Amino acid sequence: MPQLVDYEDALPEVRAVYDAIKAARGVPDVNNFWKALAVHPPTLSRTWDSLRQVMPPGALDPLVKEMLYLAVSMANGCQYCIASHSAAARAKGMTDAQYGELLAVVGMASETNRLAEAMRVPVDARFEA
Amino acid sequence: MPQLVDYEDALPEVRAVYDAIKAARGVPDVNNFWKALAVHPPTLSRTWDSLRQVMPPGALDPLVKEMLYLAVSMANGCQYCIASHSAAARAKGMTDAQYGELLAVVGMASETNRLAEAMRVPVDARFEA
Amino acid sequence: MPQLVDYEDALPEVRAVYDAIKAARGVPDVNNFWKALAVHPPTLSRTWDSLRQVMPPGALDPLVKEMLYLAVSMANGCQYCIASHSAAARAKGMTDAQYGELLAVVGMASETNRLAEAMRVPVDARFEA
Amino acid sequence: MPQLVDYEDALPEVRAVYDAIKAARGVPDVNNFWKALAVHPPTLSRTWDSLRQVMPPGALDPLVKEMLYLAVSMANGCQYCIASHSAAARAKGMTDAQYGELLAVVGMASETNRLAEAMRVPVDARFEA
Amino acid sequence: MPQLVDYEDALPEVRAVYDAIKAARGVPDVNNFWKALAVHPPTLSRTWDSLRQVMPPGALDPLVKEMLYLAVSMANGCQYCIASHSAAARAKGMTDAQYGELLAVVGMASETNRLAEAMRVPVDARFEA
Amino acid sequence: MPQLVDYEDALPEVRAVYDAIKAARGVPDVNNFWKALAVHPPTLSRTWDSLRQVMPPGALDPLVKEMLYLAVSMANGCQYCIASHSAAARAKGMTDAQYGELLAVVGMASETNRLAEAMRVPVDARFEA
Repeated sequence: MPQLVDYEDALPEVRAVYDAIKAARGVPDVNNFWKALAVHPPTLSRTWDSLRQVMPPGALDPLVKEMLYLAVSMANGCQYCIASHSAAARAKGMTDAQYGELLAVVGMASETNRLAEAMRVPVDARFEA
Repeated sequence: MPQLVDYEDALPEVRAVYDAIKAARGVPDVNNFWKALAVHPPTLSRTWDSLRQVMPPGALDPLVKEMLYLAVSMANGCQYCIASHSAAARAKGMTDAQYGELLAVVGMASETNRLAEAMRVPVDARFEA
Repeated sequence: MPQLVDYEDALPEVRAVYDAIKAARGVPDVNNFWKALAVHPPTLSRTWDSLRQVMPPGALDPLVKEMLYLAVSMANGCQYCIASHSAAARAKGMTDAQYGELLAVVGMASETNRLAEAMRVPVDARFEA
Repeated sequence: MPQLVDYEDALPEVRAVYDAIKAARGVPDVNNFWKALAVHPPTLSRTWDSLRQVMPPGALDPLVKEMLYLAVSMANGCQYCIASHSAAARAKGMTDAQYGELLAVVGMASETNRLAEAMRVPVDARFEA
Repeated sequence: MPQLVDYEDALPEVRAVYDAIKAARGVPDVNNFWKALAVHPPTLSRTWDSLRQVMPPGALDPLVKEMLYLAVSMANGCQYCIASHSAAARAKGMTDAQYGELLAVVGMASETNRLAEAMRVPVDARFEA
Repeated sequence: MPQLVDYEDALPEVRAVYDAIKAARGVPDVNNFWKALAVHPPTLSRTWDSLRQVMPPGALDPLVKEMLYLAVSMANGCQYCIASHSAAARAKGMTDAQYGELLAVVGMASETNRLAEAMRVPVDARFEA
């Protein structure tokens, strides 16, 4: 298991990122992902900067972005990310029914993705237009 | 490359599925995925039945479902599925800006999914509640 | 695309492996996988040695082994391997109906694998016994 | 971890699926996968319907199907599925020697799948015929 | 296939990134990855910023970083990335012998990764210290 | 969880491999991966033979090989392998700073691998030369 860096043991540049995360999210402490990433402060800082750019509302609303993040995490089989982004999607209003349908789409896509690759289906000309 | 079964060469039970797909989607012909799946009529039929259950509007609207399908296809690296579900999402109204943001989320999630697994981050107790 | 090493241009230690493959399989030439691997003769030689140990009949018959190889290649999405191991399975007697059922199992497993991971299902105590 | 729905707390449509699984398998209770899927009754029902169609004896015997399912689960790295389908394969007669050979094929295929993709090997013309 | 944005058709903020890449790498034009990413200028810009931070010499020398990038691209099966990062590693001095050994490690790791997961091996206490 | 075969319960051919591993590595006992593989002695023996050929110093030094192994294990998401090869890399001298940079490369590659596949970027002609 990784070393998890708590606020009181963190270097100043790590504390600065923790402070930014806590302020942006209104949480009393950062979650373990960030405490683990603190092993490499440049990656901690770069990852937070990237997320801050990618996740705010834009052409897609925040719940849709969070559900896309969760669906990709499921497809990639990341147990930590499924747990944390399920919580985030719930906090942004995902209902049980929406979660159930998301799960159904992830399952179905995983089956047809494999079937299309298994059969080496050539892309239809009209999809290339 | 797989054998692709055209309508005129298809068995009656295959034609019945093709007819159902063409009617549901308002297209003159089915795309190559279905023509390849026709090699095994029970799987052709079961897959169409499943998609018919999973993809209609419900707690999630059809464009969100289609974008989730596309995001999972990207995460799974299925070239055929990316092409076909991009076309489907476009047909349901996905804009360039929405596509760009979807792409950004898929990229970002793929990075943090790997980092969380690479560091073996333990799930926070509050995510398990 | 990789450099493919033909027999006439091959080093003696590469020719020796090509000869062994051609003799074991009764084919006039090795397929591209081996011609690409020849870029690193120790890996060429080690890979052939391993396959020779793994694939002969044992507790599982050769067709079942070949279908397992094909199913894993499909799950891993390797287009080359799907093509070559489909041909090998056909040569060992895989029928259209068997291929169709293999495809159905691969698709179904891919869906339930993702669902089980997506939901983070805890392993039942009776499976751990 | 997911909410697991026990029989006594289940909705009538969930109980109906549980009853069908218990009857088909002759088990006193369903395993955790189904109790987790009950969060979305339509997916629970659809998944059981699909498995019932895919897994019975056909052109492939039930043990071969179960070993293919297990091999794909291993390739996909699904810990839950490896545990449950190992138990299922054992129940259908898989011996230690067969398990060992299955494991060897999965390992070997995973290596050559990666090598073929890593080298971007072009598919031989004779595999496309 | 994606729309590829050439310099002469690019928006000013896209041109600025192209100029930065061309200057940093001393190349007359950017490669297709960047021309495709230009569909979403914020992702183009963020991705280049990240690469600029991650890839320069540090505790690891540039060739080792490039070989790690290549090995991960092989493990992820990304055909484009294998091609581009092979070229980059060659440009930084990777020899045929080094490439061959890298390939051997990627193949071997892919096999033992799968075997360890397939057998659900518990982590040794001494690795957790 | 797998059956783990301890030295005192092992068959003579398994003991011989354990002895070889202990001698080569100067460790008092083999780690769990080998104790699990002992379920199939031919795979145990073949896997050790392969590792002995792949991992010694050659055109790449042992630490670089170990870091490549670790990076691939991270990309493949193998928790056991990440733990064991992190320990091995540390034992061969990997510093905290090197580990941090390796992590950054793995994360970055995972993002751009997915983006390149998601956009179906065609390989530049100059990478094919």
